[in-house]
Amino acid sequence: MSALDKLFCPKSIAVIGASKNPKKIGYELVSNILAGGYEGRLYPVNPEGADVMGLKSYTSVKLIPGEVDLAVIAVPAVYVPDTLEECGQKGVKALIVISSGFREVGNTDLEDKLLSIVRKYGMRMLGPNIFGLYYAPSRMNATFGLSRVFPGSIAFVTQSGALGIAMMGWTNLYHIGVSAVVSMGNKADIEESDMLDYFTGDDRTKAVLMYIEGAKDGRRLIDSLKRTTLKKPVVVLKAGRTEKGASAAASHTGSLAGSDKIYEAAFRQSGALRALDLAQAFDWVKLMTMQPPPSNKNCLIITNGGGVGVMAADACEESGITIWPLPEDLQSEFKKLMPVFGNFRNPVDLTGQAYEESYYRSVELALKDNQIGSVIVLYCQTAITDPVAIAKSIVDAYESQRYDKTVVTSFVGGPQCEEAMRKLDERNIPAYPIPERAVSALAAYYQWQRYRQRIGKK
Amino acid sequence: MSALDKLFCPKSIAVIGASKNPKKIGYELVSNILAGGYEGRLYPVNPEGADVMGLKSYTSVKLIPGEVDLAVIAVPAVYVPDTLEECGQKGVKALIVISSGFREVGNTDLEDKLLSIVRKYGMRMLGPNIFGLYYAPSRMNATFGLSRVFPGSIAFVTQSGALGIAMMGWTNLYHIGVSAVVSMGNKADIEESDMLDYFTGDDRTKAVLMYIEGAKDGRRLIDSLKRTTLKKPVVVLKAGRTEKGASAAASHTGSLAGSDKIYEAAFRQSGALRALDLAQAFDWVKLMTMQPPPSNKNCLIITNGGGVGVMAADACEESGITIWPLPEDLQSEFKKLMPVFGNFRNPVDLTGQAYEESYYRSVELALKDNQIGSVIVLYCQTAITDPVAIAKSIVDAYESQRYDKTVVTSFVGGPQCEEAMRKLDERNIPAYPIPERAVSALAAYYQWQRYRQRIGKK
Repeated sequence: MSALDKLFCPKSIAVIGASKNPKKIGYELVSNILAGGYEGRLYPVNPEGADVMGLKSYTSVKLIPGEVDLAVIAVPAVYVPDTLEECGQKGVKALIVISSGFREVGNTDLEDKLLSIVRKYGMRMLGPNIFGLYYAPSRMNATFGLSRVFPGSIAFVTQSGALGIAMMGWTNLYHIGVSAVVSMGNKADIEESDMLDYFTGDDRTKAVLMYIEGAKDGRRLIDSLKRTTLKKPVVVLKAGRTEKGASAAASHTGSLAGSDKIYEAAFRQSGALRALDLAQAFDWVKLMTMQPPPSNKNCLIITNGGGVGVMAADACEESGITIWPLPEDLQSEFKKLMPVFGNFRNPVDLTGQAYEESYYRSVELALKDNQIGSVIVLYCQTAITDPVAIAKSIVDAYESQRYDKTVVTSFVGGPQCEEAMRKLDERNIPAYPIPERAVSALAAYYQWQRYRQRIGKK
Repeated sequence: MSALDKLFCPKSIAVIGASKNPKKIGYELVSNILAGGYEGRLYPVNPEGADVMGLKSYTSVKLIPGEVDLAVIAVPAVYVPDTLEECGQKGVKALIVISSGFREVGNTDLEDKLLSIVRKYGMRMLGPNIFGLYYAPSRMNATFGLSRVFPGSIAFVTQSGALGIAMMGWTNLYHIGVSAVVSMGNKADIEESDMLDYFTGDDRTKAVLMYIEGAKDGRRLIDSLKRTTLKKPVVVLKAGRTEKGASAAASHTGSLAGSDKIYEAAFRQSGALRALDLAQAFDWVKLMTMQPPPSNKNCLIITNGGGVGVMAADACEESGITIWPLPEDLQSEFKKLMPVFGNFRNPVDLTGQAYEESYYRSVELALKDNQIGSVIVLYCQTAITDPVAIAKSIVDAYESQRYDKTVVTSFVGGPQCEEAMRKLDERNIPAYPIPERAVSALAAYYQWQRYRQRIGKK
């Protein structure tokens, strides 16, 4: 097992700087590790050797009986080098250095010192100046962020600590699950590239979402991105796009945001998908962890409302999705499922009189046809139809057989639509409150698909 | 009182085609009018004279004792001309023709016939082929849409019926209140221009949101838009931007979507704000009905998370909002409210250690300075601070005096952030789940402001 494996899947963890005081980060860390359900051994370490939350404590990591795979360190910056020395002597493999007060405040010498100790002992270090690491498969919440995180298959790698903690909250609010949340901080040792390499080989991660303000080693980042995007989608949020943003980034993480055009080109070249904001990034990875990529370029839109059909068609055309002109035989099949004033061309408009049966049969028809690679199913709330029942009919049609198409949905309306969308999400059919967000996610998936086809042909 | 006043504020309504059968539109209409709390007189009319929901019914509108201001008509298309004749003879002033089967299916002669009857008697007609009209000040839900609508001050005018009904649901889901929901349908008589003129003079409407696929009379629309935008913001969703979208619009409402560039120019020329999707449109009008427009171009960003500060700075620069370089005296005031590793330039970063007090005093400082025209307050959830308490401190600072600045907020995090944002919204401080949405709304407000300043100078 590599040191990175020990970072993500440690059999034992020492929390150095563990505290009984609920206002201290050293308390929060122990409390979150316990609350997360971590099943390995957990050793608090503090100068007094005072027990923390009922756990026996030690005055030094070196006094812990048995091996320590991972040390989580939250002591004042000046004590960190000695602490790392002790960890090295103890044979600790991986380090999470929460402490701040290094390069981000100008203490580059102190940070260099950490790195040389880490190298000397062949350890790997995440941080310093981070909120920690969450990894769902190990049930390990080694962070001072939120105690509850919704587990899933998105790995979230973030250079902004506050954003990372807030995102832990989003996973609960929007039920979008993460396999990992990684706070990058000063990146003295471990960089985004290491994390990408790790998640490329991690079966529990289906997509990577990365927030960066600036890369330490651009060339290495591109190489790692290229390896990862061959296997799974990577969605990137690169802040500091503008002059004002870049200057804010410089004060924030000291990142030289660099020319945005260079990043833009690097992402395109390496198959990474650049989202413009957080909501978009989450929308995209939600689809990518729930559905297979489109099997071909032809997309079909099914709707009960003309207006949202037009909006979706606009969004598709603007984002390069092919609205497939339906052949006549399919047109006549769809015609049977709608009133005379329906529209059996693409977008297929079942009209406001479409009940469960029309949706079930339309979705089934679309899924069965191999000429269609992706389906966008739209619903506008009406007084006479039940959004939750319509959602169920879509789920039933989808689950009646195995299909390899990409399905996205959007339900526009009141609280019942929200309930309907939750039911779709729960069955891995991603639902969005407006058609454009569904289209945007599908367009990103198509973009990744085209990149892979291009690479495959080389 | 004009016929349009009778349409929005009738003292009495006849529902022609009222039915006892809960599956009929004629039932839904009576039921919604009653459920909405309409306080005028309500007369069901149907061939059998059968009572509907306990209300005495009539076999003809002409047999109703007393005046009828408004007739809501839901009878088969072929019977509509005779019904209108009877309405004219009775002295009805305003008509809502729900019935479909006219121009939208090629029956242009029948629709022309309606119009000539309407003209003969000096009536005004909304429709045909619509789901109805909701007007909050009259507590009148004369629609077959949803029975519950959240009242407020946005007038929503829509050419898409399904979208209009779904939007009635959104008002409940997102607590964004509407003064009116108007279904335009075939626009045989009343067009968007009439509605704009009406809402321009309507004190209960602070902003207009319009979904159109195509205008009947572009010149008239521009003139009406110009009059309205002098007084209140108009946000336009014009679908059919692209070739595919325009072709979908043609099958949907028969609209010739026209060249999108022409519409784009027309909106810009007349001060209308074009939103790209529904969510954006609602985000904008939410701000515009809650807050006054910015008092000057200088914008200040306050945050507890560097990352969201950078994102907001990017979005501001991209949308033409001036991130005001703080003068030194203000910098030193802000410096007192944050730890040493905070950032007292703009974006002002209070850091993750910012509690209620820091937020209260920072917001107060920003609001008191006349050089600042707008404030963006951001919060990222942390383990040690309480989003709801922070929201309260922002509300307290905001309400401690009367300020004429525009304030927008964004709280990024879990369910407690959602609760915090609800509290802000309730006090008319608009809150958005991501910084970019707050910035987008503020940018639209600035755009309207700049238009008015330009016009004022002419």
